[in-house]
Amino acid sequence: MAKEKLSVVKVGGNVIEDKDALASFLEGFSKLEGKKILVHGGGKRATHIASKLGIESNMINGRRVTDAETLEVITMVYGGLVNKNIVAQLQGLNTDAIGLTGADINSIASKKRPVKDIDYGFVGDVKKVNYKSIDKLMQADFTPVFCAITHDENGQLFNTNADTIASELAIGLSNLYKVELVYCFEKNGVLMEVDDDDSVIDFMDSGTYEILKHKGVFHDGMLPKLENCYHAISEGVSRVFIGNPTIISNKEQKFTTLFL
Amino acid sequence: MAKEKLSVVKVGGNVIEDKDALASFLEGFSKLEGKKILVHGGGKRATHIASKLGIESNMINGRRVTDAETLEVITMVYGGLVNKNIVAQLQGLNTDAIGLTGADINSIASKKRPVKDIDYGFVGDVKKVNYKSIDKLMQADFTPVFCAITHDENGQLFNTNADTIASELAIGLSNLYKVELVYCFEKNGVLMEVDDDDSVIDFMDSGTYEILKHKGVFHDGMLPKLENCYHAISEGVSRVFIGNPTIISNKEQKFTTLFL
Repeated sequence: MAKEKLSVVKVGGNVIEDKDALASFLEGFSKLEGKKILVHGGGKRATHIASKLGIESNMINGRRVTDAETLEVITMVYGGLVNKNIVAQLQGLNTDAIGLTGADINSIASKKRPVKDIDYGFVGDVKKVNYKSIDKLMQADFTPVFCAITHDENGQLFNTNADTIASELAIGLSNLYKVELVYCFEKNGVLMEVDDDDSVIDFMDSGTYEILKHKGVFHDGMLPKLENCYHAISEGVSRVFIGNPTIISNKEQKFTTLFL
Repeated sequence: MAKEKLSVVKVGGNVIEDKDALASFLEGFSKLEGKKILVHGGGKRATHIASKLGIESNMINGRRVTDAETLEVITMVYGGLVNKNIVAQLQGLNTDAIGLTGADINSIASKKRPVKDIDYGFVGDVKKVNYKSIDKLMQADFTPVFCAITHDENGQLFNTNADTIASELAIGLSNLYKVELVYCFEKNGVLMEVDDDDSVIDFMDSGTYEILKHKGVFHDGMLPKLENCYHAISEGVSRVFIGNPTIISNKEQKFTTLFL
């Protein structure tokens, strides 16, 4: 029997921060047909609020360390303020949303990132996606909305990368669905020339990706995203779309499709 | 057919604020048999964080007004920090919790409190409890954990009294269950003498309540709680227990039982 389609849509912080862009994106998301899951980043809101609360950002080698106070701010801002306002807005658009962290219904279990040279603090690497529990919500016609927080199954919350959460959810739910993973970000797609927003690569299979990667086409911010995407594809996700937030509603515009 | 039992347990801010008391309470809650729902207050955490963020409490006639900034703090603290940490702790105790505001699965719709003499801002009075949707979660063996936030079904979140949320949930779910409502607070029960913690009234029917109320036995903080409780009982809730947080696990201790 052919699997039913499921869209897992990740939307980034730049959209979250822009009230009008978010409203327009959520309207597009609410009209998306079939089963769907939203994963959102947090944007700079958490940094602003942490700074107002006098919590300093602790950066090591350019990467943020999540100490106990920072985790509290992330839980407040991503898990509360951002997530619940998105849920309320989706309800206003007749989408029966339910906001989740990985702790809720034990949906995403993680373990603390191992300390090698750097201790990232309360950062969790995904260990298990409880896709059967998540599917119970979808079978009840609820639309899950995930923020980028997971837990260790023993009472501890963790900060986890939102792109990773989206790809791990997509992989887990591939056991039950034909999953399409959609990454919405500030560019029109994967670009051949980083400064030319019209240089969108329309289609890219994993072989082409390896060649372009070794040619140095992709910049530092794009590489982990693409690694995430091809990891998802290699683990059973049917295809990945990358583009600006309007791609979920406007099929005529440019975007990148990744496949095996 | 006899209805299945459901416990709706409200725990107050004084427990939420005390790490050990909260851990002990959640252990008791996790062991409570049968279907159950937790409703939590927020404690003074929101006030502390609002003050750190430079948001002044706006009080009119001794009552807090929820302006837009205060609503943001409440959404962060109650909906994010407090709710998600409780969910994670319950997961660690093998209770498959799911954290909710009234916006999630449109579980509790409210409308802005009408402006008479005072405009309370973003304060919502409960309009409808969507007990069928909440029951879908319980049928999937999830344990709902509610914070004191509702929504207008059109994108706006509202601040709502946690005692009221507990009683409205209890009333709504009485359509499907034999509901026992449990209020955990700082006293051992309803007291005959406000300063004597041993003067717990064991049982009180609504007739006795009316008599004692007119005698002036109950102080200002207790009266709205009791009004809430008897309203719940008159609307179909089977009985209400009031006592300190240990009453959910220790049956030998004193508490008050309210009934019709």
